Parts: sequence; structure tokens; C-alpha cells
Amino acid sequence: MKSKPTLFTSLSPALLHLYDLSDSVVVIIDVFRATSTIASALFNGARAVIPVDSVPKAIEMSKNIDGVAAGERDGMIAEGLQHGNSPLEYTRDFIGGRTLVLTTTNGTRLLQMALDRNAHTIVAGSFPNLGAICDYLQKQNRNVVLGCAGWKDRFNLEDTLFAGAIIERLQEQFTIHCDSSLMASSLYRQHKDDLPGFAPQLTHYHRLVQRFGLIEDIRFCLTPDVANVLPFYEDGKLVIKK
Amino acid sequence: MKSKPTLFTSLSPALLHLYDLSDSVVVIIDVFRATSTIASALFNGARAVIPVDSVPKAIEMSKNIDGVAAGERDGMIAEGLQHGNSPLEYTRDFIGGRTLVLTTTNGTRLLQMALDRNAHTIVAGSFPNLGAICDYLQKQNRNVVLGCAGWKDRFNLEDTLFAGAIIERLQEQFTIHCDSSLMASSLYRQHKDDLPGFAPQLTHYHRLVQRFGLIEDIRFCLTPDVANVLPFYEDGKLVIKK
Repeated sequence: MKSKPTLFTSLSPALLHLYDLSDSVVVIIDVFRATSTIASALFNGARAVIPVDSVPKAIEMSKNIDGVAAGERDGMIAEGLQHGNSPLEYTRDFIGGRTLVLTTTNGTRLLQMALDRNAHTIVAGSFPNLGAICDYLQKQNRNVVLGCAGWKDRFNLEDTLFAGAIIERLQEQFTIHCDSSLMASSLYRQHKDDLPGFAPQLTHYHRLVQRFGLIEDIRFCLTPDVANVLPFYEDGKLVIKK
Repeated sequence: MKSKPTLFTSLSPALLHLYDLSDSVVVIIDVFRATSTIASALFNGARAVIPVDSVPKAIEMSKNIDGVAAGERDGMIAEGLQHGNSPLEYTRDFIGGRTLVLTTTNGTRLLQMALDRNAHTIVAGSFPNLGAICDYLQKQNRNVVLGCAGWKDRFNLEDTLFAGAIIERLQEQFTIHCDSSLMASSLYRQHKDDLPGFAPQLTHYHRLVQRFGLIEDIRFCLTPDVANVLPFYEDGKLVIKK
């Protein structure tokens, strides 16, 4: 009997080094809000999303390609930019046919770390594209590492819940010998019927809603399959893989 | 109104640097089995437990003080030693009045890290001394960091469950703005009524029980208050604080 591929969950960028990425599909998970925004922009017709690690790079690169420079630091639109990290900002009218150059606190940094560690394949996942991510992972027959972006290297609940959502759907197809994954799926089973009701308990909810009033963002970021595309990283860009 | 002290949970030694330990009581948690063994040895009359980071150090130091050198590597008695990391090994007949010099894969390493990061106070906790730990933390009115030892920097469920057990008892007395702590208490609430029944799902259970047959150790390590003393670190030793 052929053995199943493995699945591991990395709960923080500071734990990513514990996992072998070189033969794995790495799912970058930053539910609030980078990977939700990436799915939203691509779903609404963006040609590509280019993740970069600084505001000056975002500005420079967007000029060269007539793109949209956007980014967030500590939950707010980054200084020097006009566009932020809200998935609702990237409507079809605004982003259709354009390229988004995006820098964020946690998600784009984690993606860079996965690249540096020679990940075999990188995709970006969040509730808005849960179905597309699961369909893709199911077909690969390759090891998977679910990479939670967390908040400045701290564990967070929302990224872990999304890892749990993937595991619940795919657990039969992988060998899962990983306490992080067991915890994530257990947590997801406990809260899946009322994610918006659980949200006010998350530390990040307070950051986004109480300080910045982003309740609509939160709702979008917790709704499965509302931007159901597969953001696939190649040649420095995230593009839709069909 | 005086504000409450804070409580954070560090899910892995690789995340400990994210927390300020200098004004905190740090609870070292290595349920399977270092901190359970420490509680057991002290409860059964050991004068002290000296944590060290290598087998040669354990041997040398135990000679100087006529102590018992003991330790574990990868779940087995460490090469060169006659005694391991089983809490059941340290009966009153054997360890009463003697000093245990202990080296382990995860727990004693985490304790050293907390020392290096200038923890205000260090205590060692596990289910066998849950009550003593909670009583102590309750009286201090000081910030708390629950430090899970994990397994070679990976997250594990049993240490997190114990953190959850503490949080469930003490949550009203602390400001808890920490997703790790929320997750730990949620996980504990889910499984507290049948910890031994949940145990076979843990990766560490398989390591200890299927490979080494340590089912009695596991049962002891998951039983609250069977060695209910407070191991308190001072002058290089863990001793009972009364």
C-alpha cells in the first residue's frame, strides 16, 4: 500500500524551520487579512498580486508596472501608501486587469520565509478560498505544510481555525502525526458552526474592530468560498492557478 | 481600580523570546515527563532536584553531592545513566533525603532558557501538582508566563492542556489578552472530563506508550494533585516552597 503524504501545521513563522518544505506544498495562511485580500483581488480580476517586504519596494515596483501599491503596518494603511490590506477595497471596478503590489506585517513576510526555505510549491489560503485550496491539495498527492502567519510571531486563533478547516476536509488523505494539526482540527470542530460569534474572542478582532472599525472585513475574512480562486506563487507573483 | 496582572502562554521554547519574563512568574511545563518527575521526586522526599543540560554534568554533579544522576534522551534513559525520567521511579524509599540531578530533552532546556532571559521567578508545573501551582500563582499578584516545553520546539497537546487547566482555575484574576491562552483553555474545557481517554491521540503518547510501554507513567502524569508540592527554583536547584 502506498503511504499517504504527510500534513503538518506550523503555528507561527518562528516555528516554520521545524518543517521540511522542500517536498511540500506550503499554504500561507493570514486570515486577517493578507491572504483574504489576495484571494479577493485575484477573484475580482487582478492580473497578479506581487508580495514585497517593504513600502518603498511596493511603491517602486508598482510604478514600473502601473500597478497598485498597497500595504498595512500594525493593522493600518502603511505610511506613504493610499491603499491598505482590506479585501473589500479590491472590487472588480478598481482592481480588474491591474496588478496589486502588497506588503503586510505577517503574511508577506511568511511567504518570503517559505521561499527562502525552498518550498516546493506556495499557495495562499484563507476562508474566502477554502474550497479552491482543498481541491488543489487533494489532487497533488504531495506533503503539505499549513503555515500560519500569526501576529508578529505569536500564535493566533484565526489562522489556526483555517488550518483546522482544511484538515477537517482532507484528514483521510494525509498521514497526520502532528499535535498542532490535531489541535487545529479540534478547535475548528468546536467553533465552525459560529465563526463570527467566536470572533470577538480573538485578540486580532479587538485590534481590527475596536481600533479600526473593520467589522465588514472580519465578516468577509471568515466566510468560506466567497472569492474561491487558487493564488499560486510563481516567478515572484501570486496568480490564479486553474 | 488596580489592574490585574497579565497571563501569557508560550506554546514552544522557540516562542519564549516573545514574552517579557523579567517581571513574571514562569511556570515550566513538561507534562510528559520532566515536570511530573520533578514534582514526584520532591513529593517523595527528595531534598532537591538539580536540572542540568548534559549527561556528563549530571554524572559529575551527582558524584560531588552523593546524588542520583538521571536523565532522558528521546524518551529513553540517557546513555551512561542508570535512572531515567519516569515519575514512578522516584519512590520515597529510593529518593527520600537524596538529591536528584536531572537532564531531559525539553523541560530542563526550557528552564535554562527562562534563566537566561532573567525570569523573575521559576516554578515547575504539571498535573500532579496543579493545585499547588494554582495556589501559588493566585497569591503572587504578579504577571505569569506559562512556558510549554513541547517536543524539540514543536507544539504539543499535553503541555497546552496543562496550561489550560491553570487558566480555567485562575482566569478571573488575570488580564488574558493572548490567543494561545484562549486556545489552551478552550482545549482543556473540551477534554478535561476524560484526559486519559484523549491521551492516545497525542503524538507523545505514541512515542512513550507504543515504543516504551510507559502507560503507567502517562496515567500518573495526567492525574491532578497526586504529588501536590511547589517546585521552586533557587540557587540552581528546585526545592519545595512552602
